[in-house]
Amino acid sequence: MQQLETVVKKIQCEASKINLCIGDDLRQLKDTMEPLLCEVLEYGLLAGGKRVRPLLVVMAARLCGTNSEDVYRLAIAFEYLHAATLFHDDIIDNADMRRGRPTVASQYGTSAAILTGDFLHARSMFLVGDMVGSEGLASFCGATSGMVDGEFLQLRNAQEYNLSELDYYRAVMGKTGLLISSACEVGGIYAAGTVEQITALKMYGEKLGSAFQIIDDLLDYLGESGKTGKSVGNDLAEGKMTLPLILAMAAADATDKKRLEEILADEALREQSFTAVFAIIEKYDGFVKARKQAEQDVKDACMQLALFTDDVQEEKAFLEGLAQYVLARNV
Amino acid sequence: MQQLETVVKKIQCEASKINLCIGDDLRQLKDTMEPLLCEVLEYGLLAGGKRVRPLLVVMAARLCGTNSEDVYRLAIAFEYLHAATLFHDDIIDNADMRRGRPTVASQYGTSAAILTGDFLHARSMFLVGDMVGSEGLASFCGATSGMVDGEFLQLRNAQEYNLSELDYYRAVMGKTGLLISSACEVGGIYAAGTVEQITALKMYGEKLGSAFQIIDDLLDYLGESGKTGKSVGNDLAEGKMTLPLILAMAAADATDKKRLEEILADEALREQSFTAVFAIIEKYDGFVKARKQAEQDVKDACMQLALFTDDVQEEKAFLEGLAQYVLARNV
Repeated sequence: MQQLETVVKKIQCEASKINLCIGDDLRQLKDTMEPLLCEVLEYGLLAGGKRVRPLLVVMAARLCGTNSEDVYRLAIAFEYLHAATLFHDDIIDNADMRRGRPTVASQYGTSAAILTGDFLHARSMFLVGDMVGSEGLASFCGATSGMVDGEFLQLRNAQEYNLSELDYYRAVMGKTGLLISSACEVGGIYAAGTVEQITALKMYGEKLGSAFQIIDDLLDYLGESGKTGKSVGNDLAEGKMTLPLILAMAAADATDKKRLEEILADEALREQSFTAVFAIIEKYDGFVKARKQAEQDVKDACMQLALFTDDVQEEKAFLEGLAQYVLARNV
Repeated sequence: MQQLETVVKKIQCEASKINLCIGDDLRQLKDTMEPLLCEVLEYGLLAGGKRVRPLLVVMAARLCGTNSEDVYRLAIAFEYLHAATLFHDDIIDNADMRRGRPTVASQYGTSAAILTGDFLHARSMFLVGDMVGSEGLASFCGATSGMVDGEFLQLRNAQEYNLSELDYYRAVMGKTGLLISSACEVGGIYAAGTVEQITALKMYGEKLGSAFQIIDDLLDYLGESGKTGKSVGNDLAEGKMTLPLILAMAAADATDKKRLEEILADEALREQSFTAVFAIIEKYDGFVKARKQAEQDVKDACMQLALFTDDVQEEKAFLEGLAQYVLARNV
């Protein structure tokens, strides 16, 4: 637990540095940009959050031996792209609230949310291109393309109750993994790391992203709504096939499988059947197996860090701790 | 008229080369991307259109002495960004039809239109960063930021009936001018033109964009709906202050000014008062003055081309012809 406390402190400390850098950048924009655009940017960007993606850029760069403070300018690009994605996702999902307050779309309207997202896209891509050139930009833009592709995959999967684990992981990579692994990769590229170092960082990010998403899926069944800020059972209500359910479906006998399919096919049934579905998932160890997968991902992530040497011990310990933190989180 | 025919032929010839290049790029994406995403991309990108922005990239590069066919890969990025903007704009404007068929949003839904626009953003910025590096990317991303800023400015202007010409031009630059001038600038950067050449190309693009937008505004009052594919009077109905109206408002006596303000403040009145507003604009020479401004912009645009030498006579003549074509267009 000592280690986790250190991780949390470090996250908070770095988050405030990243917030300062975002604040500086926004202040510059104020000289030339429309007041309302600046207001929406501030509302959407300075709403708290752990700033995990920029933090990974900074840590990856340090692991590869760079201590320059300029890296924060690169790091904020990852928060910008993440925020742009949230602005647009909240329109797509018709979401009213995020982090306990109205989404950008419900506060300022759909048009403002689309446009401000586009603005952040452009700003983030300019920053990445400017600071790490074409190789880093390819990774960064690839993450955006992959996110869009993942959303289309999820759309196609929406009516597919016998989703394979493989399809699930492809959707997860798009949704979470690609941007997280790109943050690690681009931090390494910025610091002129070796090919082995950059590959290891990228893999670390992929596994971290996967574990993060699995825990997110688990919390949607097992979380306490007071802590997560969102009610339990959303994924089921929306008919989303997440890992615990996929694993249960794959192991279920004919009767239980038929029952699950009946529930999933009917919106009203889905909303009423949380307890029944929960029991079936539990019966087939869906939660336990999903949790084990997340633990394995965290192990795999940490293994990637082995090649980094002792002179970056602190950063290495932090990234290991961050992976453990993902497993421990309950919000 | 001979010159205009040559221009039209050249536009058609280059448009088909650009379409081939887009087709090649989309075919490559098909190997890795979701089928529905590829379908939306094809629907949105291969719907005709004059491909003016990529054409300007190609011509600007040739003016600066580069004849490489690779320039088409850079050029399509400008069509991608333009298309992304249209996908998102049609959501914002609640538009059902574009170029005589359903918009991407009405054909595939809002979510698909947002996401596919985001995909094209990322793809276009990657292409520009890859092919011209940071300087070109700054211009390209600046055009996107400027477009968003222009939309917010237009939002703020929506209730402002005494809009200045200056505010109008700033909105026009955002809406049309920046991407067109960026196409010219980036073509010059790609071809390693001199600073003077690149500046001249950029200015040519700004003036061309301005003339284009003024003619667009005029057509909304004077166009024949059969040819433009959209009905006349949209701008007035939406309460948009375009140049003919701004100029009339500035010159009108107190009675006419009050009358215009009354009409503009009331949605139902705006829709009924096309003929009345038309007459007031005509009384104060609003159409004539706006047309003169467009003609002046075209003259200014062509003047910028003076510094290019005789060995690129054909491209120079084409860009001059293109500017004349903007004045002559009635669709």
